[in-house]
Amino acid sequence: MHATLPSAKALVPFVSVENMMRLVHHVGIEPFLKELSDYIEQDFRRWESFDKTPRLASHSRDGVIELMPTSDGTNYSFKYVNGHPKNTRNGFQTVAAFGLLADVLNGYPILLTEMTLLTALRTAATSAMAARHLAPRNATTMALIGNGAQAEFQALAMKAVVGINHVRLYDVDPAATAKAARNLEGKGLQVTSCRTAEAAIEGSQIITTCTADKQNAQILTDNLVGSGVHINAIGGDCPGKTELHPDILLRADTYVEYPPQTRIEGEIQQMSEDFPVTELWKVIAGLDNGRRDDRQITLFDSVGFAIEDFSALRYVRDKLSGTPFSQDLDIVADPDDPRDLFGMLERAR
Amino acid sequence: MHATLPSAKALVPFVSVENMMRLVHHVGIEPFLKELSDYIEQDFRRWESFDKTPRLASHSRDGVIELMPTSDGTNYSFKYVNGHPKNTRNGFQTVAAFGLLADVLNGYPILLTEMTLLTALRTAATSAMAARHLAPRNATTMALIGNGAQAEFQALAMKAVVGINHVRLYDVDPAATAKAARNLEGKGLQVTSCRTAEAAIEGSQIITTCTADKQNAQILTDNLVGSGVHINAIGGDCPGKTELHPDILLRADTYVEYPPQTRIEGEIQQMSEDFPVTELWKVIAGLDNGRRDDRQITLFDSVGFAIEDFSALRYVRDKLSGTPFSQDLDIVADPDDPRDLFGMLERAR
Repeated sequence: MHATLPSAKALVPFVSVENMMRLVHHVGIEPFLKELSDYIEQDFRRWESFDKTPRLASHSRDGVIELMPTSDGTNYSFKYVNGHPKNTRNGFQTVAAFGLLADVLNGYPILLTEMTLLTALRTAATSAMAARHLAPRNATTMALIGNGAQAEFQALAMKAVVGINHVRLYDVDPAATAKAARNLEGKGLQVTSCRTAEAAIEGSQIITTCTADKQNAQILTDNLVGSGVHINAIGGDCPGKTELHPDILLRADTYVEYPPQTRIEGEIQQMSEDFPVTELWKVIAGLDNGRRDDRQITLFDSVGFAIEDFSALRYVRDKLSGTPFSQDLDIVADPDDPRDLFGMLERAR
Repeated sequence: MHATLPSAKALVPFVSVENMMRLVHHVGIEPFLKELSDYIEQDFRRWESFDKTPRLASHSRDGVIELMPTSDGTNYSFKYVNGHPKNTRNGFQTVAAFGLLADVLNGYPILLTEMTLLTALRTAATSAMAARHLAPRNATTMALIGNGAQAEFQALAMKAVVGINHVRLYDVDPAATAKAARNLEGKGLQVTSCRTAEAAIEGSQIITTCTADKQNAQILTDNLVGSGVHINAIGGDCPGKTELHPDILLRADTYVEYPPQTRIEGEIQQMSEDFPVTELWKVIAGLDNGRRDDRQITLFDSVGFAIEDFSALRYVRDKLSGTPFSQDLDIVADPDDPRDLFGMLERAR
């Protein structure tokens, strides 16, 4: 059809799920999580240079489809991501995603990639980055409540970035805990499977909640949470979906990504509109002290923000260089004369 | 890597630029434009069943990148599209786009396609659908002012849908006019190349403006526009970019797609916030009469709306069925157990 192949301008590197898995193993899961958390930290440090907007959500009875764009003036990114808690009953992922990085100068895409795996990796890397700044010094043990698709990534990121060596698992479904324990075997972590949330929390300096039910649940009640812990709450991430009893929030200092989004979607949707929070980027940038003392309860009320996806896309673009882990997609029309789109179509007849 | 290939759940049909051109020629350009205008009309008729939001725009010095989502409760769609008027100087398209159709029930993508060509086709099909309802009866002649990438699509859609048989071309750059005239040879249209906008308008019942400069230009001044014409203004489509002298709007009846977006981006950005407009869908649905008499000036102040892309994606999905014009992309992770994303990654080692 074409006299010649599409030019380089017309081709966009695409990373399939298969190639993302190859890239992760090429780098190594823990180094990938560690380097990715460094990229996210770099972008949190220059938070003010990004265009920020709450994600654009399309809610339906069974879930939500969201677009999450941002830009630093040089690159633009967005992620498409769904959240459908009932999907697993039919063999589908709760969360599936893909994303794109583009050049602001001309608006052309420069990378298209699966982001189901990449979202799990960036969420874990973000949790670990926050814990590095907020968790008690020398934290060694984390409770992991909710042992679904995110669980192992969370455990390995906390190991790689914060240095924990013991993870205590709990899920309402023992099969999920068994799955996570099996996957974490031989990864250099002591793994303890627990039969209650209370047991999982015992001796843990970091408590991660990542459950999937779309409801206002109370995975953690106030009496379960002692002083001095860091809570990493990642499952309360859309309207009507929370994991913590509000009394916990009254005792904790709460850190968030982007307040206008978190007040709609995070744990703090349960609180008044002026409930005090600290923006996490200010801790990273040294504008806020973060953890004050050993008795403070810190809470990272994480809902996921577009800048974390931007960092992940930037990291994948840099890591792809010189590897065979992408394929070129003919997704942008490229006529010889850009005003002659119709002529390109005609000549293809 | 995989023991087995990704399952059907993990694969999304992708239509490359090459395959979109094949599909268009398989159907025929004019039948494609006609059928597409019917799909758009169907969706305008059920306008109220769609989620609507102004597009999410990221503006930069040289252009804009936009996300345009919508949903009818069964399917969800979005388009990524840029607009960079200076791009052609560097051999890039002013507008490049791609889009996606998804299943609202589980949030999974069901079609990914180039939309640079498809946007040109849907814009022309929308213009023609509006003209079918608003232009004077038995219109035979259109002026086409601005002979860039959109021009030939506009002419052929007006031929296929409205039945015009004569197009009068004008562009500030005679090379653009020569390009459009050459491309329209042998297409069953009388083509007249004109040296002024005034000459192009002479004897035309439909006046289409589709120029690309990002400024408040006055391609049409009030004295150029006689009574009884239909103006199809498609180039005034972002803040600071208009084509008509405001006096024309005072004499015309103005029809728009989605007022909250058009008031920001369309010709009516020049007018007061309460400048009266009619929503085009109401004409299509029979709730508004459309053209009243032979002397009325009708103006379709078109900026492009997400529902038109939804219709185009729906049309391409239907037309693809049984053709070889797509390839399967492994863009959605598909573990055997959807909660075992990590296990899928591990087994791929």
